[in-house]
Amino acid sequence: MNAHIITIGDEILIGQTLNTNAAYIGSEISKLQINIQKTSVVGDDENAILKEFQECWEKNNLLIVTGGLGPTNDDITRQCIVKFFNTELVNSKEVLDDIKNLFKKRGRELTKVNENQALVPKIAEVIRNERGTAPGYWIEIEGKIFIAMPGVPYEMSAMMKSFVIPNLKEKIHNLSSFTIRRTLQTTGIPESNLYEKLGDLDELLDGSKLAFLPSQFGVRLRITVEEKTEDLAKNKSSELEQKIRSKAGRYIYACEDETLEEVVGRLLKDRGLTIAVAESCTGGHLSNLLTNINGSSDYFERGIISYSNASKVELLRVNEDTIAEHGAVSMEIARQMAEGIKSISGTDIGFSVTGIMGPTGAVPGKPVGLVYIGFCDDKQCTSKKFQFGEDRLLNKQRTAYAALEMVRRSLLGIPLDD
Amino acid sequence: MNAHIITIGDEILIGQTLNTNAAYIGSEISKLQINIQKTSVVGDDENAILKEFQECWEKNNLLIVTGGLGPTNDDITRQCIVKFFNTELVNSKEVLDDIKNLFKKRGRELTKVNENQALVPKIAEVIRNERGTAPGYWIEIEGKIFIAMPGVPYEMSAMMKSFVIPNLKEKIHNLSSFTIRRTLQTTGIPESNLYEKLGDLDELLDGSKLAFLPSQFGVRLRITVEEKTEDLAKNKSSELEQKIRSKAGRYIYACEDETLEEVVGRLLKDRGLTIAVAESCTGGHLSNLLTNINGSSDYFERGIISYSNASKVELLRVNEDTIAEHGAVSMEIARQMAEGIKSISGTDIGFSVTGIMGPTGAVPGKPVGLVYIGFCDDKQCTSKKFQFGEDRLLNKQRTAYAALEMVRRSLLGIPLDD
Repeated sequence: MNAHIITIGDEILIGQTLNTNAAYIGSEISKLQINIQKTSVVGDDENAILKEFQECWEKNNLLIVTGGLGPTNDDITRQCIVKFFNTELVNSKEVLDDIKNLFKKRGRELTKVNENQALVPKIAEVIRNERGTAPGYWIEIEGKIFIAMPGVPYEMSAMMKSFVIPNLKEKIHNLSSFTIRRTLQTTGIPESNLYEKLGDLDELLDGSKLAFLPSQFGVRLRITVEEKTEDLAKNKSSELEQKIRSKAGRYIYACEDETLEEVVGRLLKDRGLTIAVAESCTGGHLSNLLTNINGSSDYFERGIISYSNASKVELLRVNEDTIAEHGAVSMEIARQMAEGIKSISGTDIGFSVTGIMGPTGAVPGKPVGLVYIGFCDDKQCTSKKFQFGEDRLLNKQRTAYAALEMVRRSLLGIPLDD
Repeated sequence: MNAHIITIGDEILIGQTLNTNAAYIGSEISKLQINIQKTSVVGDDENAILKEFQECWEKNNLLIVTGGLGPTNDDITRQCIVKFFNTELVNSKEVLDDIKNLFKKRGRELTKVNENQALVPKIAEVIRNERGTAPGYWIEIEGKIFIAMPGVPYEMSAMMKSFVIPNLKEKIHNLSSFTIRRTLQTTGIPESNLYEKLGDLDELLDGSKLAFLPSQFGVRLRITVEEKTEDLAKNKSSELEQKIRSKAGRYIYACEDETLEEVVGRLLKDRGLTIAVAESCTGGHLSNLLTNINGSSDYFERGIISYSNASKVELLRVNEDTIAEHGAVSMEIARQMAEGIKSISGTDIGFSVTGIMGPTGAVPGKPVGLVYIGFCDDKQCTSKKFQFGEDRLLNKQRTAYAALEMVRRSLLGIPLDD
């Protein structure tokens, strides 16, 4: 099954909104062994939309469209569908009831504009919307499938889960090959060094594919194995993973989409340990990452964002004289902050960050991007220096990441200054 | 000038990586009055890439490509460019010197793989890369422009700023029309009600366009005005904005991409006020938003993430008996937390959040999504109840947003429980 994903909306074209929908749909349908040929974005323009429908419908047997199904006059996808399939709009009692119920639940009055959303293309099966007023459409013609869903990610993803994915699964039979994708996340090694470390790739891969996906935080390695059966693919993929691990295992901290904060959370939970953090420069980002994980209250005790010097002294018992002597951004203060937060919160681990995120705030000898990370558990109390770049938000992210990596290493007994 | 943006990479197609590059480029070149016809994503496959080049090159006079220029064997964009333009690779001394300098600066040893990146298509002008090893290419043929850049956003955006945007600006002459886009951000009113509030749109718009862009946090209104000259477009856009404000002004909290945390930061700075926050359920997200703003240390004094009950009592002086009686997620505790953080930090404003973010943690009478926000300044000390949804991360974001909106309202003298 060959698929094309179309996202409709000027806001995507001009970069005002990120195309998270195409990413989500792409991720979900590739898990179903559906081949994504291409994705594209077109604006809220009837000619452009009809032309794109035409081209993609010819070349593929699955077309998934999002966007332009809302109640306002800039939403024209429904009328394009009616024209493209040469059909007409009919009233759907089912959709009207859904809309009425939704408004009742929210205690809002139904407007004429919303009522109009119960008009649907005659040839479409309705995809019900539990989270909003615009229904989706499922159209099947001569073995090809056309799916349209509203562009609000929260509504679209619910439709994917409850209707689109189960229905697509049913359609998929007699696959002649099976593809497995597996991602290994590395950190602490540049792409080209990792590449060289893996040696002769043709020999290593033996017909499979390996992609290097670098970012500011590390390099992801994506293995793609295609074999005749699921079992063959699984075996080959696991063999390949073992070979890669034998060459570069120490740099691999997680698989698939597991985040570093999830890895750290899992390790803490497994060991029954608690943690607290004192943040200066990351301003809450680090605590936010840790508490994004459901159940984090089992190990995350508290966080203190000691932005001002007064708060460092009052809350973390940092020595005022040390601040005067070395400055708040220093090896000593990072260590004292980690010690302080561990001591006041009574946790097994305390850690801390202090630095200059930019673009302003640099002083002689302390450039933008300078960061100290402190770490304290029952065995050691230490701090480490980092020099990141010039972008404020990227610096906050890289600092948080480096701090979490220090915690991960300590939990696995890897030396912190490796 | 008609443009098409192509992003190359399986990781985008299968949704492993968000297509931030197309969004960034789209945003930058639409500011240059360049018309973006379409954007598309193709995988790391020679046939697919060459076919896409062919199609887009025929239909447009500007083609911008990102991705697939890295040093590893899954990067095939360079060889596709060589085939497409029927040219050959030549050694660029300039690029080789850049790569050597970069490695020297980073204290790393040059590898053969990196040296190969100095081979560039003969017909291309090189776009130098200050932040990595892969150069970009600028190819001009018969009045058409083909631009290729590496996919790492941090490298690509630097090339856009230093080379691509200035060079495109030079190419743009004799525009026959001028387009202005303006975005007004609203919150606290559903899309369909906002739509009705604006009345007869044809009359209001008089040939201009208005798009409604809803999200979980509010609805953005995007005005698009196209006129013969810049002055005419500016006048009409500002007139239209005034009309919209007269009908729905109270819901508009910001223009363009200004975030709520920027608005709040600006208001605090203008008034010379300071703020501190006590977070429970948002776990640092709120402080993180506030400190994303450069210069936030002028008004943000400290944050406390009182995840455990002990930390609420010890740090915020919350009454233990009140927790026992009403629970940590309650109107009373939210108020006490706001009062406590204001008092211990000595700021003009203290505010707080406590709630149940899910998916677990609900108790009888307190469902997932229940949130209390506390607010305390010299005039009032109050708290307010909210009921959000079931998604943990979305709940953290909506809670932070509602809390910031409370601060904004207080600073502008709008009643908090409006």
